[in-house]
Amino acid sequence: MNTLFESETRTATLEEHVPYWHETYDVVVIGAGFAGLTAAIEAHNAGASVVVIEKMKAPGGNSIISDGGIAAAGTSMQEKAGIADSAELMYSDMLKAGMGLNHPALVREVATHSTEAFLWSRDYLGVPYMDRIDQFGGHTVPRCYTAENVSGSTIIRCQVAKLRELDVEMRTQTMLKGLIRDASGTVCGVAVRDGYNHKSPHSGTDRFIKATRGVILATGGFGADVSFRTAQDPRLSEEIDTTNTPFATAEALIEALRIQAMPVHLSHIQLGPWASPDEKGFGDGPRFADYIVFQYGLIVSPTTSARIVNELADRKTVADAILEVGRPCIGIADSKAVEQSGWSIDRGIEKGVVKVFSSLSELGSHYGLDNAALASTVERFNGFVEAKADAEFGKPIISEAGPLTNPPFFAMRLWPKVHHTMGGVQINASAQVIDLKGYPTGGLYAAGEATGGVHGACRLGSCAITDCLVFGRIAGRSAATEKP
Amino acid sequence: MNTLFESETRTATLEEHVPYWHETYDVVVIGAGFAGLTAAIEAHNAGASVVVIEKMKAPGGNSIISDGGIAAAGTSMQEKAGIADSAELMYSDMLKAGMGLNHPALVREVATHSTEAFLWSRDYLGVPYMDRIDQFGGHTVPRCYTAENVSGSTIIRCQVAKLRELDVEMRTQTMLKGLIRDASGTVCGVAVRDGYNHKSPHSGTDRFIKATRGVILATGGFGADVSFRTAQDPRLSEEIDTTNTPFATAEALIEALRIQAMPVHLSHIQLGPWASPDEKGFGDGPRFADYIVFQYGLIVSPTTSARIVNELADRKTVADAILEVGRPCIGIADSKAVEQSGWSIDRGIEKGVVKVFSSLSELGSHYGLDNAALASTVERFNGFVEAKADAEFGKPIISEAGPLTNPPFFAMRLWPKVHHTMGGVQINASAQVIDLKGYPTGGLYAAGEATGGVHGACRLGSCAITDCLVFGRIAGRSAATEKP
Repeated sequence: MNTLFESETRTATLEEHVPYWHETYDVVVIGAGFAGLTAAIEAHNAGASVVVIEKMKAPGGNSIISDGGIAAAGTSMQEKAGIADSAELMYSDMLKAGMGLNHPALVREVATHSTEAFLWSRDYLGVPYMDRIDQFGGHTVPRCYTAENVSGSTIIRCQVAKLRELDVEMRTQTMLKGLIRDASGTVCGVAVRDGYNHKSPHSGTDRFIKATRGVILATGGFGADVSFRTAQDPRLSEEIDTTNTPFATAEALIEALRIQAMPVHLSHIQLGPWASPDEKGFGDGPRFADYIVFQYGLIVSPTTSARIVNELADRKTVADAILEVGRPCIGIADSKAVEQSGWSIDRGIEKGVVKVFSSLSELGSHYGLDNAALASTVERFNGFVEAKADAEFGKPIISEAGPLTNPPFFAMRLWPKVHHTMGGVQINASAQVIDLKGYPTGGLYAAGEATGGVHGACRLGSCAITDCLVFGRIAGRSAATEKP
Repeated sequence: MNTLFESETRTATLEEHVPYWHETYDVVVIGAGFAGLTAAIEAHNAGASVVVIEKMKAPGGNSIISDGGIAAAGTSMQEKAGIADSAELMYSDMLKAGMGLNHPALVREVATHSTEAFLWSRDYLGVPYMDRIDQFGGHTVPRCYTAENVSGSTIIRCQVAKLRELDVEMRTQTMLKGLIRDASGTVCGVAVRDGYNHKSPHSGTDRFIKATRGVILATGGFGADVSFRTAQDPRLSEEIDTTNTPFATAEALIEALRIQAMPVHLSHIQLGPWASPDEKGFGDGPRFADYIVFQYGLIVSPTTSARIVNELADRKTVADAILEVGRPCIGIADSKAVEQSGWSIDRGIEKGVVKVFSSLSELGSHYGLDNAALASTVERFNGFVEAKADAEFGKPIISEAGPLTNPPFFAMRLWPKVHHTMGGVQINASAQVIDLKGYPTGGLYAAGEATGGVHGACRLGSCAITDCLVFGRIAGRSAATEKP
């Protein structure tokens, strides 16, 4: 039993209470996802001694199960493909989706450095990207690049390899227990539990690690923390599934709030509109829904068989539209759309999440739709596609899209899952954590989903990895150059 | 110089650091607005010794400048007027406006006890109410009762008189400096600055007041705190005016967050859509806009002369619609509407905030509108009024409303101001403050605008006073009956 931790509810974790420092680094990074690994690499390259702390058995956190799509504006690939894009356009797309709540200076950093961060991952880390540029809901133009295997693990693997090459230490099964501040209020180290095992949380031993230059909070979101998330949005009880790992919890955020970090946008919690109620977690349905249905197909209500929304609207708009219907809606595409997309949906079909039908009426009957109403909805939609103008919801019709007339037809049920927590601690453009009175907290930095403000009320798809890389790099450099 | 306060950024304010208690009460109430005065009366009547702390020179806080409207569902006055209402209907109106973010148990308390709280204020406190029932945006039926003089001061005056009658002590110019916790983490008192003067914040002397049963935070919102509110919503810079007093600031909320109260919905900040850019603060325009234009008239865009929104939608919808236009919009009514409303708008006219025109075209020319477009907008709107169905925006047409055909016409410019902060500390249905880990904070209660969760994403007009009275009463009783 450690009295420091026993008494933490009533007293701050102060350096004067630390019995001794077990070890010392310039920079301690908490969390081994996209943001943390990026920060560690950059802090090392800026000359700091670095250790990465990760509570789970392996690095990757929630990042490793993402689909590995990263937005970057104004790349040479876009130029070759004839896509006119700019940091300014990405900035305005992000602000629009964020309903103006975004912190403009943070959005500016992400948009301006998006291409630089993408190229850094490709050319310096060696992340292999697929030869395609996708357009997701809320983006004005295609600007998403997807890592090979459509998986964040491709990026994580390259980051971990780079850290090994650089000889940066990583400690897995090491849980943050407390941020430690010196007499001036500056964060000067961390208390951790070594040998942590999430199945027996009291396992392991306590250690104190001094950070002479800075601590970087890169601990991700709280999408799987039912207690914390329902305080912010009571609808998100345990009955709503999440795409996150079960370990996307709030304890590090709570620790930052305990030492008076300013909370920002905590109640803005993103639901993934492309999720299936017929599988657990992120699953295989979203690839079909996000890359095929939303791009080329349509979403219909199970009760009216009518379309319900601009399928390429931002995630909040689409998820809210589905929730408003109150029952899982049906996402529909045809074989031409699947072919156009260039994606394989075999895994979704094998799992039974994506269904195949020889005709629209077979599809309609399977889901209990009114087949006459469905036929008329699809016919009307096809008219919009041919006219290149959606007179019903104003969806931008992608140039290579054609009418849905080519069997087999593919469909899946759609029901939102908790996907991303837009809120977190406030940071400034140097990734310094801001306190309740508006001042930077000395020695404390943050990046990625642990922070709030970049995405405002709603994050656009593929902007999270950009955020993690851009602010991970900034946090790593800022912390490394802090005066010891 | 007091080292306790000097060091407060790095250490909690603990009882062991308190040199001595200057005095002791069972219950200390912080803030002398609707919620705080209500809590003090109820705590006294539950047998506690009580002191009320107020930072300003006089009681009333931001409440005193409100328009004194209180929502109550299912009253006998409604029944007499043939209005079918219920707590259930009020509950669902509040949840709908709150976009489902409201904490259901808190909304349930407010709706269920709304009539009881209203009658308590009328019959026990002796608040005189006008003989009218109004319907505000977002409410399904008329359920707002307005204190005489259309002013919160009428209610405050009765509350203060009742406290005097009960011999409950009130200390003005006494500023909260810190919440003090004992070794178990329970809030056991407060540090205050006596003789505080907001013009010289370091004036006065420090005192420690022990609270043997509880401290009640009734410190209101942070609508006038530009630094805190821009962290939550960066659009709300000093260029946006507020209807609040300049003293509606965040220092007490910050103090509660410092001792780990759970922040809820801080970024949901309500703008008053009925405000005029032609006067400072709340002003005299809102009475015309809210009670006359929104009820019987219409709002047109200064660029297109078209209607922009259901004028009886909730505040967020109306304010967002005006902001979306990007320039002040024009609210219009006719003399019959003014007469029907029963309100005097003389003060708005005297100030030049509300303008009088002998014809619609004179009105249009004054505001630079396209008169042909304006005439057609009004004609169309009048058709909806006569048909009792708004085919454009679905506004519920009030039964006694008639077409706008009776000169003189009245109009004002509309531009939103910061009005109410929906967010604050989390409480449970007993008004106990909930901490970051989901547990009640011993000895700490809160009520009114200092709390978050009752109103969710958007507060309905006239529900704030109901909230303050219902939860003020609960907080007073809960604190008074806490074991000493």
